[in-house]
Amino acid sequence: MKDLLRGFRLKGMDEEAQRFTSSIPYDSEIFEQVKKINVAHMAMLVSKGLVDRDEGLKCIEALRELNGLKPSYELEDVHMAVEAHVISKVGEAGEMLNLAKSRNDQVATAIRMRLKEYVLDAVRELLSLRKTLLRRASEHLGVVMPGYTHMQQAQPVSLPTHLLAYFSSLGRDVKRLMASYEFADECPMGSAALATTGFDIDRGLVARLLGFSKVMEDPIDAVSSRDFLLDAIFGLMQTMLDLSRMAEELIVWSSKEFGFVEMPDELSSTSSIMPQKKNPVVCEIVRAKASNLIGELVATASMLKSLPYSYNLDLQELTPHLWSSFRDAIDSIRMMNKVMDSVKFDAERMRADLDGSTLATSLADMLVERLGMSFRKAHNLVGLISKKAEGREFVEVAKELLPAMLGVELPWLDSLNPESVVESRKVLGGTSRDSTLKLIELGKKEVEKEELWLDERLASLKRADAELESFVSGLRR
Amino acid sequence: MKDLLRGFRLKGMDEEAQRFTSSIPYDSEIFEQVKKINVAHMAMLVSKGLVDRDEGLKCIEALRELNGLKPSYELEDVHMAVEAHVISKVGEAGEMLNLAKSRNDQVATAIRMRLKEYVLDAVRELLSLRKTLLRRASEHLGVVMPGYTHMQQAQPVSLPTHLLAYFSSLGRDVKRLMASYEFADECPMGSAALATTGFDIDRGLVARLLGFSKVMEDPIDAVSSRDFLLDAIFGLMQTMLDLSRMAEELIVWSSKEFGFVEMPDELSSTSSIMPQKKNPVVCEIVRAKASNLIGELVATASMLKSLPYSYNLDLQELTPHLWSSFRDAIDSIRMMNKVMDSVKFDAERMRADLDGSTLATSLADMLVERLGMSFRKAHNLVGLISKKAEGREFVEVAKELLPAMLGVELPWLDSLNPESVVESRKVLGGTSRDSTLKLIELGKKEVEKEELWLDERLASLKRADAELESFVSGLRR
Amino acid sequence: MKDLLRGFRLKGMDEEAQRFTSSIPYDSEIFEQVKKINVAHMAMLVSKGLVDRDEGLKCIEALRELNGLKPSYELEDVHMAVEAHVISKVGEAGEMLNLAKSRNDQVATAIRMRLKEYVLDAVRELLSLRKTLLRRASEHLGVVMPGYTHMQQAQPVSLPTHLLAYFSSLGRDVKRLMASYEFADECPMGSAALATTGFDIDRGLVARLLGFSKVMEDPIDAVSSRDFLLDAIFGLMQTMLDLSRMAEELIVWSSKEFGFVEMPDELSSTSSIMPQKKNPVVCEIVRAKASNLIGELVATASMLKSLPYSYNLDLQELTPHLWSSFRDAIDSIRMMNKVMDSVKFDAERMRADLDGSTLATSLADMLVERLGMSFRKAHNLVGLISKKAEGREFVEVAKELLPAMLGVELPWLDSLNPESVVESRKVLGGTSRDSTLKLIELGKKEVEKEELWLDERLASLKRADAELESFVSGLRR
Amino acid sequence: MKDLLRGFRLKGMDEEAQRFTSSIPYDSEIFEQVKKINVAHMAMLVSKGLVDRDEGLKCIEALRELNGLKPSYELEDVHMAVEAHVISKVGEAGEMLNLAKSRNDQVATAIRMRLKEYVLDAVRELLSLRKTLLRRASEHLGVVMPGYTHMQQAQPVSLPTHLLAYFSSLGRDVKRLMASYEFADECPMGSAALATTGFDIDRGLVARLLGFSKVMEDPIDAVSSRDFLLDAIFGLMQTMLDLSRMAEELIVWSSKEFGFVEMPDELSSTSSIMPQKKNPVVCEIVRAKASNLIGELVATASMLKSLPYSYNLDLQELTPHLWSSFRDAIDSIRMMNKVMDSVKFDAERMRADLDGSTLATSLADMLVERLGMSFRKAHNLVGLISKKAEGREFVEVAKELLPAMLGVELPWLDSLNPESVVESRKVLGGTSRDSTLKLIELGKKEVEKEELWLDERLASLKRADAELESFVSGLRR
Repeated sequence: MKDLLRGFRLKGMDEEAQRFTSSIPYDSEIFEQVKKINVAHMAMLVSKGLVDRDEGLKCIEALRELNGLKPSYELEDVHMAVEAHVISKVGEAGEMLNLAKSRNDQVATAIRMRLKEYVLDAVRELLSLRKTLLRRASEHLGVVMPGYTHMQQAQPVSLPTHLLAYFSSLGRDVKRLMASYEFADECPMGSAALATTGFDIDRGLVARLLGFSKVMEDPIDAVSSRDFLLDAIFGLMQTMLDLSRMAEELIVWSSKEFGFVEMPDELSSTSSIMPQKKNPVVCEIVRAKASNLIGELVATASMLKSLPYSYNLDLQELTPHLWSSFRDAIDSIRMMNKVMDSVKFDAERMRADLDGSTLATSLADMLVERLGMSFRKAHNLVGLISKKAEGREFVEVAKELLPAMLGVELPWLDSLNPESVVESRKVLGGTSRDSTLKLIELGKKEVEKEELWLDERLASLKRADAELESFVSGLRR
Repeated sequence: MKDLLRGFRLKGMDEEAQRFTSSIPYDSEIFEQVKKINVAHMAMLVSKGLVDRDEGLKCIEALRELNGLKPSYELEDVHMAVEAHVISKVGEAGEMLNLAKSRNDQVATAIRMRLKEYVLDAVRELLSLRKTLLRRASEHLGVVMPGYTHMQQAQPVSLPTHLLAYFSSLGRDVKRLMASYEFADECPMGSAALATTGFDIDRGLVARLLGFSKVMEDPIDAVSSRDFLLDAIFGLMQTMLDLSRMAEELIVWSSKEFGFVEMPDELSSTSSIMPQKKNPVVCEIVRAKASNLIGELVATASMLKSLPYSYNLDLQELTPHLWSSFRDAIDSIRMMNKVMDSVKFDAERMRADLDGSTLATSLADMLVERLGMSFRKAHNLVGLISKKAEGREFVEVAKELLPAMLGVELPWLDSLNPESVVESRKVLGGTSRDSTLKLIELGKKEVEKEELWLDERLASLKRADAELESFVSGLRR
Repeated sequence: MKDLLRGFRLKGMDEEAQRFTSSIPYDSEIFEQVKKINVAHMAMLVSKGLVDRDEGLKCIEALRELNGLKPSYELEDVHMAVEAHVISKVGEAGEMLNLAKSRNDQVATAIRMRLKEYVLDAVRELLSLRKTLLRRASEHLGVVMPGYTHMQQAQPVSLPTHLLAYFSSLGRDVKRLMASYEFADECPMGSAALATTGFDIDRGLVARLLGFSKVMEDPIDAVSSRDFLLDAIFGLMQTMLDLSRMAEELIVWSSKEFGFVEMPDELSSTSSIMPQKKNPVVCEIVRAKASNLIGELVATASMLKSLPYSYNLDLQELTPHLWSSFRDAIDSIRMMNKVMDSVKFDAERMRADLDGSTLATSLADMLVERLGMSFRKAHNLVGLISKKAEGREFVEVAKELLPAMLGVELPWLDSLNPESVVESRKVLGGTSRDSTLKLIELGKKEVEKEELWLDERLASLKRADAELESFVSGLRR
Repeated sequence: MKDLLRGFRLKGMDEEAQRFTSSIPYDSEIFEQVKKINVAHMAMLVSKGLVDRDEGLKCIEALRELNGLKPSYELEDVHMAVEAHVISKVGEAGEMLNLAKSRNDQVATAIRMRLKEYVLDAVRELLSLRKTLLRRASEHLGVVMPGYTHMQQAQPVSLPTHLLAYFSSLGRDVKRLMASYEFADECPMGSAALATTGFDIDRGLVARLLGFSKVMEDPIDAVSSRDFLLDAIFGLMQTMLDLSRMAEELIVWSSKEFGFVEMPDELSSTSSIMPQKKNPVVCEIVRAKASNLIGELVATASMLKSLPYSYNLDLQELTPHLWSSFRDAIDSIRMMNKVMDSVKFDAERMRADLDGSTLATSLADMLVERLGMSFRKAHNLVGLISKKAEGREFVEVAKELLPAMLGVELPWLDSLNPESVVESRKVLGGTSRDSTLKLIELGKKEVEKEELWLDERLASLKRADAELESFVSGLRR
C-alpha cells in the first residue's frame, strides 16, 4: 500500500520533518467530511460515466465502513489514509478515488463543511444566551440601578435596560456568524490541484450533495483562499469581546464593594478558609479567552498576508486556529449562559447604592420643561446646587435652595426620585416599563427569526444528506 | 462663553492632561456630521414643540453658517465648539442646543455617518479595481502561464484564470464592506448620555433625517458599542490581505528571474545608476500597509476587551484607528488599481518559462480516459516517466517510452501541450476560453449589482439630506 | 537641481504614487540625525583622503547651515533634500556627499540614533515615576488596605506594599528599555546599499563620531534588519501594560463604591451638572493607549514576517509605528506620574472597607503556631468558623466559638486585627513597617543605579558630539 | 481526601465549569517543578523549626516517590493533587505541606523554573544553527551571487556575506533569550497568596535551592506579574521572524525561476506524478509558524492589559501560550538547522544569473577613484550608459562608449567583473575573502561566549539540585 501511494513524499523523508509538516494532529476534525466528499465525488463520477458503476459503488461501500481515523504519519494525512483504506478493501477499484480531484480542493471543501456545522452550534448557543437575557430582563422589570459613565455614577437606569444592552450586542454577533456561514457556503470541489480538470465532471451536483449553496468557480481562488476562515474567527472574536465586557462587569459587580450580584456557588471557586469568598472564576476565564480569539485572528491574518495565490503549505497551519477558536468561543458562550441564567441580582443593594446626585440631569430637564428655562442655564443652575450638596442628600438640598433662588414654589420636586425618573423615559428604547416591555417583545421576534434561520440551515444540510443517500441508491439500480 | 460652558471640565484642568485626553486632533473628520446632527435634532425638537420655533430656527441658521472647525483645546472638542459658536451667534436661543441629547449619543452617531461615507468610497474604488481586472482578463484570453503550488510549477493555467482569482477574492471584500455598512446604519440619537430622556422626542424622525435605516433602541448599547467600527476595519483588513497577496505576486513576477510582468515607469522607482532597475515600490508599500490594518484591528479589539458597558473615554481612542484604516485601504486600492491597469504581462516569457513536466497530470488523465487505466496506476506510471525525463523535455520522453511500455500506439500524444491542456478544461470555472468568457460574464453581472447597491445607498443619503432640508423649510412656514 | 538628482525616480512618476510611497511625512523625525551623519561621513572621507579637504569642509559648512526640513515630494525624501541643499550651496563639491554611502545605510543609522534619544527620554520619565511611587509609599507607611485576589478581598495588606508592586514592575520596564538601547547601539554606516564599498573608508571612526558603541559588520544584515525597532516597541508595550493595570485599579478605586482614591481636579473631567463626578479620564486614556502599543507591535512584526533580506520598501512603513509608540508611551508615563504624584489615597475608607474574614488566614496560621495544629486542619477549622460567621464580625465569632471547640483559652485572639497581621509579616518583602522600609531603601539604590546608567549614556552621546566637532576642526588645520 | 481538601471549590461545582476553569490540561508541564518546590519549601520549614523534622522528612520522601501526574478534575490542579498524594502517603504529617505558601506563589515559581529550562533548550538549538551557518559560509567562500533590493538585482555580493547576515540576526535572538532568562530568574516563593506570611521563613534559602539568582521581594508584584512570560515569547517571536525571512528566501530561491538552491529530498514533499517537484514544505511551515508566535504575543499581551494587580484567574490562561510558543519555536529552529545544514547552493546558477548592470555602482566608484570625477557626476554618467545598454551586456557597452565620451583610455575596464568587485570590498564587513574570514572568526568567538553562558546556567541549575539534595540529607542527621 505504502508502495502504491508513495511518492506523495520523496522516499525517506526525515521523520522529524514529516511530523513537523503533518496535518495529522488536526485531521480528525474533518474526517467525516473527507469521507462524505469522497462518497459524493465518486457518486458523481459514476453518474457521469467516468467510473465504472460497480467499481464506484464498491468504493462508496468501503468509504461508509470506514470508522474513525487511525492517524499515522506514514500515510501522511487524512486524505491519503482514506484512499489507502479504500484500496486495501476493494483493490484496484479504489485507485479511481482521486480521479478529477486533489487534496487541495478536498481539504478546502472539508474545512468549509466542518466550519458550517460549528457556526450553527455557535449560533444555537448564542440564541440560548440571548433568550436567557430576555428572561432575566423580564424578571427584573422595575429594578433601578446606577448607570455609569467612566465608572462613575451618572444617572439611574433600569437593570432590564442594561441586560438588554447585552442582548442587543449579542444580536449583532449572531448576524456576523450568519454572514460567515454564507461566506463558507461555496464549494471548491472540481478545482482539483488549482486548474480544474479535463474530465467532464458536474461541479454543481457535488456541491449540492455536500449541502453547499453554490460552486466556487475560479479554481485558483478556490484552493488559495482562506478568508472565509477569518470571517468566522472574527465573528467569534466580536462575540468574545462582548462576553468579556459582560464578564468584566459581573466581576466588578461581585466585589464586596459593589455587591450588585451574587455568583451561584456552582460557578464559583472559593477557599476553604474563607468560604464566603466567591471567586468569579468562570467570568475571569471568559474574559481571558477573549484574548485568545484576538490572538487567533492575528495569527491567521498574518499567515495570509503576502502569501502568493494557489496552494502553499502555510494554509495548513491556519486551520488549527479555526478549531480552537470555535472551541473557546462555544465553551465561553455556554458558560456565560449558565452564569446569566443563575446569577442573583441584588436589587436592594443596587437601589441603595444610587447616589442622589444622579438625579441632577432629570432635575435640569424638569426646570426646562416646567419653568421654560433654557437647557444650558438649567444645567448650570443644577450644577450649582450639586456643588452645594456635596456630602448631603441632593434632592433635599434642591428642595431647600431652589424655590428661594427662583422665587417660586416647586411642589413637583417631591416626585423626583430614581423610580419616577426611570419611569419618565417613555421614548423608544427608554427605561420606562412600557418601553422595556416593547424592547423585550421586539427581541423575542428577532430571536424567533434567527431560530428560523438556524432551523432552515440544519434542515438544508439534512436534505443534502438525504439526497446524497438517495442519489447513491439510485446509482445501484 | 467659556464661563457658561465651563464645568464640563473642572476648573483649572492641567494643560498637558487636557491635550492628552482631547479628541480635538481627530474631530475634524466628523465636523460636518456633528453640524448636521445638531440641525436634525433641533428641527425635531421644534417639530415636537420642545423648543420655540423661532429660537430653534435661529440655531439652525447659526449652525449652517459654521464653516470649518477651529480646534481649540479650551473648548475641549467639536461638540463644545459647535455649541459655543451657536450661543455666540444667537445668544440664549443657543442654550437649548443640547436638550435631550448628549455628547455620548452624538459622537457615536457622527462616527457612524462618517464611516458610512467612507465605506461607500472604499466600495467604489474596489468596484473600479474589479472592473480593471475583468478588462485585463478579457485582454489576455489564451495567455498560458505556469500554475504554482508551493512556488513550484505544477500545471499550466491561464493568465485570465489567475486574474479572475484576484477578482473573485475582492468580490468577497465588497460583500464584507457592504455588511459593515449595514452594521453602522443604526442611529444612537436619543440615547442621550446613556439613559434616553424624559422629553417626548421622536427618535425615528432624527434617524431618518440623518439617513439611517433604523433607530438603535437600547441606549446603553447605543453609547457603549463600537463593534461596528471593528466590522469596517476587518473588512478593510481582509481587502488589504488580498491586495498584499496580489502585490507579493507582482513583486516576485517583476524580478529578473521570473520576468512575468513589467511595472509601468510611473509606478516604479529606480536608481539613477541602474535605470533599468524598476523597483515595484507601490506594491511594496501596499504589502506593508496590509500589516497596518492588522495592527489597527488588534489595537481596537484590545481596547474593547473587558471594557465595562456605557461610555468610557477609552472609546475615544478607538476612532483614530478607523480613519487611518480607511485612508490606508482606500489609497492602497486606488494604487493597486493603477498598477493592475497598466502593468505589462509578458505572455511570451510566461509561456517560455513553462516546464514540460507540468503536463504530467494531464497525461495521466489521458491514460485514464483513453486507455481505461486506473487513476492511481496512470499517476504512478507518469511519475516513472517524469523521473526518467529529468533534464530532458517531458513530452519527448513520454513519446519515446510510453508506447513501448504499454505496447500500443499513442498518436494523441502529439496533441499534448500547454495550450491544449488549458483549453481542455471546459468545466465550470475551467481554464478553457469558453469557461473563462462565462466567468467574465458572471463577473460583470456581479459588479453591476454591486454598483446598483452603491448607487442606492448614495441616493438614499442624498434623499435624507433633501428631506432634512425640506423639513427645516417646512418648520419656517 | 532636480535634473542632476533625477533618476532616483523614473521621470514622470505618478504624483499619487509618489505621495503613496514617500517617507516625507515622517522624515522630520530624523532630520537632525541625517545631517549629522552626513557631517561625520564627510569628515571621515576627508580624513581618509577620499575627498578633497576644502571641498569636504565646504559641504560640512553647508550641512551645518541647514535649518529645518522643507519637505517636498519633488525631492523625494530627507536624504535627497539634504544633498540638494548642499549642492545648491557649494556646487560641485556637494556632489561627493554620497560617496561610499547610500540611503539604505543612512536611514537605518538615523533611525537608530533617534531611537536612542527617545529611549533615554522614556527612561528618564520612568525613573521619575518610580521615584514618585517610592515617595508615595513612604508617605503612607502603616496604611492598611484590603488585598484582593479575583477582585475579592483576601487578606489585609499595606498600601506601600501595593505601591511598591507598581514600582517593581516598572523596574523591569526600565531594564527592557535599557536593553533596547543596546540593541540599537550598532552603526550600519559603511554598508552602503547592501554590499559595503570598495573605497577604503573607516567604519569604526564614523560609528564613534555618531555616538555608537560598535560597527554593525555584516552589511546585508545592517540594511535589512529592523528588529531593534521591535525591541523598543516591545519595551514600551510592556511599560504600557503595567501602566494600564495601574490605571485600571485607579479607575475602579475611584468609583463611589470603592472610594479608595480621589483624583485631583486638574486631572479629571466632570460634568457641569454633577460637579462631584470626577471622571478619571487620564487613566482611561492611558488604559486605551496600551492597546495602541499592542497594535504597533503587531503591525511591525507582521511587516517583517517573511520579508526577504536586504532593503525592501516595506521597511519604510515600519518607522512611523516607532515614533508614535514613543510618543504614546512617553506621554502616558508622564501623565501617570502626575496622577501618582497627586492622587489622594483615602486611608480611612480603605481600613473601614476591610472585611473581618480577611483575617481568617492569619488566624489559621496562629493556630498552627501557637497550638501546634496541622496547617490543613487549622485551615479547615477556621473555614468552619468563617461559615458560621456569615454576616457577623469574623473575629467576634471566632472569639465566641473557638475556645469552646478547642477547650482552651485563647487570649491572644484579642490581638487579631488587620494592623497586627500586617505588622506580623516581617520576612523579606513582608508588609511590616521594617520590611517595607528596607524595600524602599533597596528601591532607592536601584533607581540611583539606573540614573547613573542614564547619565553615562547622555554623557557618552555628548562626548561623541564634541569629538565630531573637534574632529572637523582638526581637519581645518 | 477530597473531604479534607474540599472547600478550595464550593461543594458541587458545576462539572462543565470545573473543566472550563481548570489548569489540569497544562499542569503536566510544571509537575516536576511543583514537586521540587514542595521539597525545597518543606526542607526550609524544617530547617527553620517550623515543621517537625520527622514529619517534614516523611513529606519529602512521599514527594520523591511521586511519579507522573494523574490529572483529575476532582483534585482541581497539580498543586492539590500533590498535596492529596502526600497526605494519602504520610497522613497528618502531610497537612503541613502548604504552611507559609500558596498556589499563587507556587505556580508563578514553577512556571519560571520550567521557562528557564526551555530557554536553555532554545538557546542550545539556536547556537547549533548559528554554527551551521558559519560552516556553510566557510564552505562557500568566493561564491558570488546577485544582491537584491526590492527583489531587483542591485549589486554582486557573496553567498557567505548573505549567510552571515542570517548568522548576525540570530545572534541578537540569542541575546534576547538570554535576557528573558534573567527576567525569569527571580523567585516568588514566600509571597504566599499575595501578602507573604507571618512565619519566620527563609525566602533566600528556598530561592537558592530552586536555582534562582534572587528573591522577588514585593509579594503583590510576585504573584501578579507575568511580564517575564511575554519577554520569552517576544524573544521567540523575533527568532521566528528571522527564520521566516530565511524561509521566504529559500522558498523563492528554490523556485525553478531562481534555481539558487536545491532542497534535500528528505526535507521536501513532492508529488508521485512530478517527482522533480520538490516542495519546500519545511520552510513553508516555518514561515507560517512565525505567525503563531505573533498571535501568542498578542493573546498574552491583551490578557494582561488592564488586569488588576494580584492574582486573577486570567493569569492561568496565559501559560499555555508560553508552552506552545516554545514548542513551535524550538521545532522550527531545529528544522531550519536541518535545512541549512543540507540545502545545496547552486553557485554556478547564482553566478550565471548575475546581470551585468549590477556592476554599474562599482563602475561609478571607479570613475571617482581613478578619474577624480565627482560622485554624483560619475553616477549619472554610468546611468546614461546603463540606459544605452538596455538588452546588451553592460560592461561591453561601457567599454565601447566610455573612452570616447571621456576622451581617455580606460584599460582597467577589463578588470570590471563580479568577482573583482566582490573582492574589492575590503572594509570591515566587506565581501572580500579576508573580510569574510574575519567575520567568521569573530562569529566563532561570539558563539563560544554564548556556549559558555549556556554551560554556566546549566551548571548552576545542577549545582542547585545538588545543594537541595545535600540540604535534605543534612536535615536527616
